[in-house]
Amino acid sequence: MATNHASDTPETLFIGIDGGGTSCRARVVDANLNCLGEGLAGAANPYQSLEGTSAAILAATDKALSKARIDRARRASIIVGAGLAGVNLPSVLRQMNEWQHPFAEFFLTTDLEIACLGAHAGEDGAVMIAGTGSSGCSIVDGAVTIVGASGYPLADTGSGAWIGLHGLRAALLSLERLGPYTMLGKSVEASLGATGDGVVEALIDAGTDRLAQFAALVFEAAEQGDLVATEILREGASYLDGLARRLTESNPPSLSFLGGLSNSLKPWLDTNVAKTLTPPKRSAIAGACYFARREYKRLSTGIDAGA
Amino acid sequence: MATNHASDTPETLFIGIDGGGTSCRARVVDANLNCLGEGLAGAANPYQSLEGTSAAILAATDKALSKARIDRARRASIIVGAGLAGVNLPSVLRQMNEWQHPFAEFFLTTDLEIACLGAHAGEDGAVMIAGTGSSGCSIVDGAVTIVGASGYPLADTGSGAWIGLHGLRAALLSLERLGPYTMLGKSVEASLGATGDGVVEALIDAGTDRLAQFAALVFEAAEQGDLVATEILREGASYLDGLARRLTESNPPSLSFLGGLSNSLKPWLDTNVAKTLTPPKRSAIAGACYFARREYKRLSTGIDAGA
Repeated sequence: MATNHASDTPETLFIGIDGGGTSCRARVVDANLNCLGEGLAGAANPYQSLEGTSAAILAATDKALSKARIDRARRASIIVGAGLAGVNLPSVLRQMNEWQHPFAEFFLTTDLEIACLGAHAGEDGAVMIAGTGSSGCSIVDGAVTIVGASGYPLADTGSGAWIGLHGLRAALLSLERLGPYTMLGKSVEASLGATGDGVVEALIDAGTDRLAQFAALVFEAAEQGDLVATEILREGASYLDGLARRLTESNPPSLSFLGGLSNSLKPWLDTNVAKTLTPPKRSAIAGACYFARREYKRLSTGIDAGA
Repeated sequence: MATNHASDTPETLFIGIDGGGTSCRARVVDANLNCLGEGLAGAANPYQSLEGTSAAILAATDKALSKARIDRARRASIIVGAGLAGVNLPSVLRQMNEWQHPFAEFFLTTDLEIACLGAHAGEDGAVMIAGTGSSGCSIVDGAVTIVGASGYPLADTGSGAWIGLHGLRAALLSLERLGPYTMLGKSVEASLGATGDGVVEALIDAGTDRLAQFAALVFEAAEQGDLVATEILREGASYLDGLARRLTESNPPSLSFLGGLSNSLKPWLDTNVAKTLTPPKRSAIAGACYFARREYKRLSTGIDAGA
């Protein structure tokens, strides 16, 4: 068994971490990036909670090591690469980098970079992501460019939260006869089991996850020919077309479209953009393992030694 | 002095309350609505805090009574009319109405209705409001209609928060070359003293008041011919044109445009809409006093006795 083999050898082990607002995944791999074990823990978004993030990373790595039958004491010799949501903010990155971790190395980057590394199996490439939020990332000759990742409500056009919010806004305008008719009025009321001020009350303080749940109603209405829903999806897709063009400016070898809404949104993209998309090769957690190994090699070969 | 006169007579006294997320104003008036004294206290938005709201109302009324040299013990015979933000939500209205207040009567309505009553000195009429948020209210034959008052982010087009947010979004798109150039990119950076991810970091978790602060940059850019800023203001004004038309459907005798942005936005409205606007006659706190007296008369004459 690979696990027994791994636990017996003194070779370098890597752990990839994929952390975000919902959960934290850890994967232990050998020097050839073969998976030895995985573990899952709670939210790991250091913008939301630094303590929660380090706790989730430790819990997920402990589980992954246990699955791989590797003694927890070996943590001190393991190289970790983590891609976390929120660390695109300079102060969050700085604070998270101050963490007194128990590993040999703890390399930190954004969730976007590991998604991009995963999609292109560790090679150069770009990704456009449309899930609850939207963003783009390209890696060309090792240079990482992140665009459109400012989050809700400053950015996020074409994302689930944006589509859902705009569907809700259109529904309310239609119900109050302040905007054009859309079937979203009735479908939102039905979905909430509420009418009038009850709709507003049911949605007050809705966060991005909640808003994103209404994106499905917008796709449904557009499919049935609703003009308002169609216009929302066209505007969102048009933004994503621009994001894709912006990402290809640096000539990445390939571009993948990721995220929970990518399949639904692909038919809405410009055909010239859609036909350039290539399916992602591997997942973000695999990307985190590539990242761990790449940064370790850079450190070992002294590329960044002067920094 | 009116105050001494008032404190000596047993005539009915009214208190108007104008409460919102920033402050709570109380005004004691005699039966002819002559002002006897005013008091100011902290935030009174029952959606944010029921306890805070009742405490602010008591503090503001105590101050107003003290100014009017009226013994606090007379509270039990005073008729109060309060217009509060947040009570358009059914559950908030219900909870606030359960308050064991120390007054003879406590009539409760929205901040919009008292603004409308004030603007038309207690008569029928309509108001369109553009401040941090946007909304409309009409009162015709005693029937109150409220439209477009679902708040940020579900509604609020043309409001300060909406204009500010859209200015910020446009600035970020321009800075990242994901959207058309706008001078808002530089003016937002200058205003924040930040660039790149620092801009996003400075704005994270910005609430509606903070977003509304950026509306001024949008007006400034539009004045200098910036096309993106102009388009934002045109879209906001076009929504307000529609709001005005919707409010005049019920034929209110007059329509006023209120709120901190009304003067800046008026030149952007359709001239056919702008020319119908009449200046407001009195303030929201005066409207609250009209409301207190009107509801007391309704109760006394038994119009609502069967309810």
